[in-house]
Amino acid sequence: MREVAIIGVGQTKVGEHWDISLRHLALEALQASMADAGVTRVDTLYAGNMLSGELIGQEHLGALIADFAGLRGTEAFKIEAACASGAAALRMGFVAVAGGLANIVAVVGVEKMTDTLGPDTTTALAMASDADYEAAQGVSFVALNALLMRRYMHEYGYGHQDFAPFAVNAHRNGVNNPFAMFQFPVTAERFARAKMICDPINLLDSSPICDGAAAVVLAPADAARAFSATPVRIAGSAVGTDTLAVHDRRDPLVLDGAVLSTRRAYEQAGMSPENIDLFELHDAFSIMTALSLEAAGFAEKGQGLRLALDGEIGIDSRIPITTMGGLKARGHPVGATGIYQVVEVVEQLRGLAGANQVPNARVGMAQNIGGSGATVVTHILERME
Amino acid sequence: MREVAIIGVGQTKVGEHWDISLRHLALEALQASMADAGVTRVDTLYAGNMLSGELIGQEHLGALIADFAGLRGTEAFKIEAACASGAAALRMGFVAVAGGLANIVAVVGVEKMTDTLGPDTTTALAMASDADYEAAQGVSFVALNALLMRRYMHEYGYGHQDFAPFAVNAHRNGVNNPFAMFQFPVTAERFARAKMICDPINLLDSSPICDGAAAVVLAPADAARAFSATPVRIAGSAVGTDTLAVHDRRDPLVLDGAVLSTRRAYEQAGMSPENIDLFELHDAFSIMTALSLEAAGFAEKGQGLRLALDGEIGIDSRIPITTMGGLKARGHPVGATGIYQVVEVVEQLRGLAGANQVPNARVGMAQNIGGSGATVVTHILERME
Repeated sequence: MREVAIIGVGQTKVGEHWDISLRHLALEALQASMADAGVTRVDTLYAGNMLSGELIGQEHLGALIADFAGLRGTEAFKIEAACASGAAALRMGFVAVAGGLANIVAVVGVEKMTDTLGPDTTTALAMASDADYEAAQGVSFVALNALLMRRYMHEYGYGHQDFAPFAVNAHRNGVNNPFAMFQFPVTAERFARAKMICDPINLLDSSPICDGAAAVVLAPADAARAFSATPVRIAGSAVGTDTLAVHDRRDPLVLDGAVLSTRRAYEQAGMSPENIDLFELHDAFSIMTALSLEAAGFAEKGQGLRLALDGEIGIDSRIPITTMGGLKARGHPVGATGIYQVVEVVEQLRGLAGANQVPNARVGMAQNIGGSGATVVTHILERME
Repeated sequence: MREVAIIGVGQTKVGEHWDISLRHLALEALQASMADAGVTRVDTLYAGNMLSGELIGQEHLGALIADFAGLRGTEAFKIEAACASGAAALRMGFVAVAGGLANIVAVVGVEKMTDTLGPDTTTALAMASDADYEAAQGVSFVALNALLMRRYMHEYGYGHQDFAPFAVNAHRNGVNNPFAMFQFPVTAERFARAKMICDPINLLDSSPICDGAAAVVLAPADAARAFSATPVRIAGSAVGTDTLAVHDRRDPLVLDGAVLSTRRAYEQAGMSPENIDLFELHDAFSIMTALSLEAAGFAEKGQGLRLALDGEIGIDSRIPITTMGGLKARGHPVGATGIYQVVEVVEQLRGLAGANQVPNARVGMAQNIGGSGATVVTHILERME
């Protein structure tokens, strides 16, 4: 098995792009990543996407994006794992390069959630949950997360306002990210006054519906310096799964898929939580942030929220999270999110994160979650010295 | 790169299964393949599927099927490349095992096209074409193929009745396949009288809308005999892509993606058309059969139909095709088709094809086409002596 490096990254600004089509979003990110890597062709292209069929009536994104990007003929597939589709596509790219089946691989995550044909986006997102046993009962995705959040508050004695630091931290970091959808800060007071969406989840507990694309280019690590002055090694790449339906879980407040996924990634990298300088986690809802911190070993069960309350999640703190705004402020174009997370970790490891730079960042972890924890894809990235 | 073998296969009967859900179809095929291989766990599961989101409101099939099959925790993704999704998933399994990233991999192709929520299946299938430049004009998939068929007839001077042997051959073979949707023969006379669907494509030029699932289990070839007395080596695994939109093609009557895909597979296997004892091609419409035979090197441009007219496609002929009924008679549950093709080739190479057995079959090729030729995935399989 060969070591694999990221030699180029690209991203579009996240937002409601009513005037930009899915293929144009994908093209912009892909071309940026290929220009960054200095390559004009790739062996294989993997596209991470969840909802292009449902929302804009277009499947078959692999060949579509390959052709539109001038790569006609190139092997190309779409990879889907709900909101973890982006990182799932990266995982396939890692497998192809690590195994020696391809040398240069492009991975683009893209989602177009505005200007859609329908069904409505909330209905489409519920397809990440169990269609027969959850969605069929009318339980939306935000409702599932609301149930988890209420249970967490009940079990561990937290109040809703205790979740405020997650949103405050994400928005503070989003201010300095030119690709973020929301470049404004929010206060704990504003969080307290935010509109309720699905009790106890309010607007500032939630990531937005939006459009975006991000891309990375991979190469064997031993060839990486021919393409990039600042390559980043993929030290760990791992996947864990769990039941789609929350009611089938061993314990609804433990993300077993994330526990498995991070354990496998740590083992592969020969690392533990102490080695991680920053953690781009999947803060689709603030309850997911708390559960992710626990599953990844940064806090005991029920104590993920405590990290935020104790001020341990900021740029200069014990475990910086959502350093470029996270899903909350950068935005959550679902199939693209996993690649945005990785692009942001790469920028941190390259020392290019500007005002949000984590000092001496050497190792970063990105974790992308599909459904309410049914597919969890973890990548540990390390600066190549 | 390691050699890869198929150590187990499974399939469900194709049909309109109004009483069987997608997850049950997938389970049946997957369990059959795992029982055939004698394994109770796998390292990774890839699910090939195109339309589960659009038609039954369920994405996230990787984790869903893994959990439902008792493989909770296992790495699992959905792979999509329109009607080539099944073979695309197999390609990913090949990459994982060949590269040493996994040892035992299950690949299941599944599609549920009846008992759907909507949109109507014809609209959903059009998502394989270019949504902005083809489907948006109201051009359905059968209409695109009708345009190609008309052009082929015009260019080369064929009449519609000249296509009859493809349907006759497929149905003749389907009679003896217990998993086929249509187990009855058709005559050239019946073809001549068949209802017109989209001129010049009639009912017997077309594959049916249906449900089904098929699965294979992969292992490194050097370990294959520990699992199977009759393992089959994957000698070639390759992908070629082309434009989604037919009007963007260099020549609409040449499947450049199939030319690329087969050339790559032949090179990898060190083979040429002469080595192929049977060819499971993608006869979604009879025009595709003709174009596939030409692209894969079995006939010159415009001469694919001639093979059928000259009686060269039957079980005992020069190049047996659709030996178990093909998409036409076995059926075309789109995301499952690519795996059905491979399962059928394996059965031929094992000598278990019964009345349809190709004598001394040693090498078989399966080719799965997405869209009207935009993604073409080719696998060359060889009996291990």
